[in-house]
Amino acid sequence: MSTFGTLFRVTTYGESHCASVGAIIDGCPPGLPLVAQDVQTQLSRRRPGQSNLTTPRDEKDLVHLQSGIEHGVTLGTPIGLLVRNEDQRPKDYSETDLYPRPSHADWTYLEKYGVKASSGGGRSSARETIGRVAAGAIAEKYLKLAYGIEIVAFVSSVGKVSLPSAVSPPSQVPEGEDDVVEDALSPEFVELLRTVTREKVDAQPTRCPHAETSERMVKTASSSLLNADARIALSSGASWSSLAVGSSSS
Amino acid sequence: MSTFGTLFRVTTYGESHCASVGAIIDGCPPGLPLVAQDVQTQLSRRRPGQSNLTTPRDEKDLVHLQSGIEHGVTLGTPIGLLVRNEDQRPKDYSETDLYPRPSHADWTYLEKYGVKASSGGGRSSARETIGRVAAGAIAEKYLKLAYGIEIVAFVSSVGKVSLPSAVSPPSQVPEGEDDVVEDALSPEFVELLRTVTREKVDAQPTRCPHAETSERMVKTASSSLLNADARIALSSGASWSSLAVGSSSS
Repeated sequence: MSTFGTLFRVTTYGESHCASVGAIIDGCPPGLPLVAQDVQTQLSRRRPGQSNLTTPRDEKDLVHLQSGIEHGVTLGTPIGLLVRNEDQRPKDYSETDLYPRPSHADWTYLEKYGVKASSGGGRSSARETIGRVAAGAIAEKYLKLAYGIEIVAFVSSVGKVSLPSAVSPPSQVPEGEDDVVEDALSPEFVELLRTVTREKVDAQPTRCPHAETSERMVKTASSSLLNADARIALSSGASWSSLAVGSSSS
Repeated sequence: MSTFGTLFRVTTYGESHCASVGAIIDGCPPGLPLVAQDVQTQLSRRRPGQSNLTTPRDEKDLVHLQSGIEHGVTLGTPIGLLVRNEDQRPKDYSETDLYPRPSHADWTYLEKYGVKASSGGGRSSARETIGRVAAGAIAEKYLKLAYGIEIVAFVSSVGKVSLPSAVSPPSQVPEGEDDVVEDALSPEFVELLRTVTREKVDAQPTRCPHAETSERMVKTASSSLLNADARIALSSGASWSSLAVGSSSS
């Protein structure tokens, strides 16, 4: 199903080329200051067309808050929101629709339901993430205001290109080397965690804040583009590292 | 929370005076023929302003299907739908907003959340039922096509006015008279169940298909209108009877 969470419950809807994609966020605490821009900032970060490494469709992804908020404050009731699909060209992918696309789930949908959206990824489009990104933006604002928690995530590898071992997170230590986990948490990586900010992450087109690694990722992705599978490299092969930083000052 | 059901799961959102009210229906089987008119028919039956017995606001309640359907067939993916609140006048109820309204839940919302929508019933408005009526219309169509099931519901009492004992359903037999249940299922009531149709129900402004009883209900409700609590009589005091009729021919 398309519902996630218990106390903070998110339900999403939408395919790549239907009227809109959106979500209902149920259980958001009342009294939280919330305006469309809080959500829009994250949707704009998610949006394709920001660099030449991602899908070139320029989708504006403007959020329309429908309910659960009045005078800039949440009511405690379900928050309905939607983003219109402005790029509804049913024939966009007509040629590739002749066969299932690698690394996509459209074949799975066809097998499961016996019918699928005629264009693009349908329900398995990355546009499905819009509802969850929007819900995440609301959860993030609540966590920041209520507990001073900030969240920063970054790309640590794309395909075979990853951060140098000196700054790799512990989870990327090769199997069988559990006894060197302490060593893997190198001073360089600790320093990266200590100093990384969302601004530094967003300054790189790859969202990898380590400039030298980011450059190598760009070169690899760009050469993959020549092989017409760069989107696969970026959507399926990228590893994300994330961390939450508690701050008592906010 | 605002989610109902397990396999056929309905999540609703919306207050009386926000941008829209709507729902996400998750788990609707794929391949079901479905167009907006299937839902619209039931929303129009729900709509206020159909008689002088209900709230006089004339809301058009046009449904906008957002997802989960293509070329008139369900995809098996979540069906998003919404109805815009065209009658968004925040000051409509300003005078009555000074105190909680009887038979409404706005006081409960204020106590629970410490904040409530400034106008009308907010989340406790009867407009919240729009999402569930729409979901019910989809479920009803599936039940009819897949199993030949038809559903007819009717009003059997309003306040102290009810169907004559001869045609009362068994559940309305007074306490302590369990031994006369067989007698209560009178030939007249069996005949009513056998012949009642949605058209006969809708032909009466009270939705009570028993013409003589319906007339008495109208008189009672109209005199209650003079006491300015007719809406309470109709929204809180009405009892509904419903039945499902299996039909092998559809």
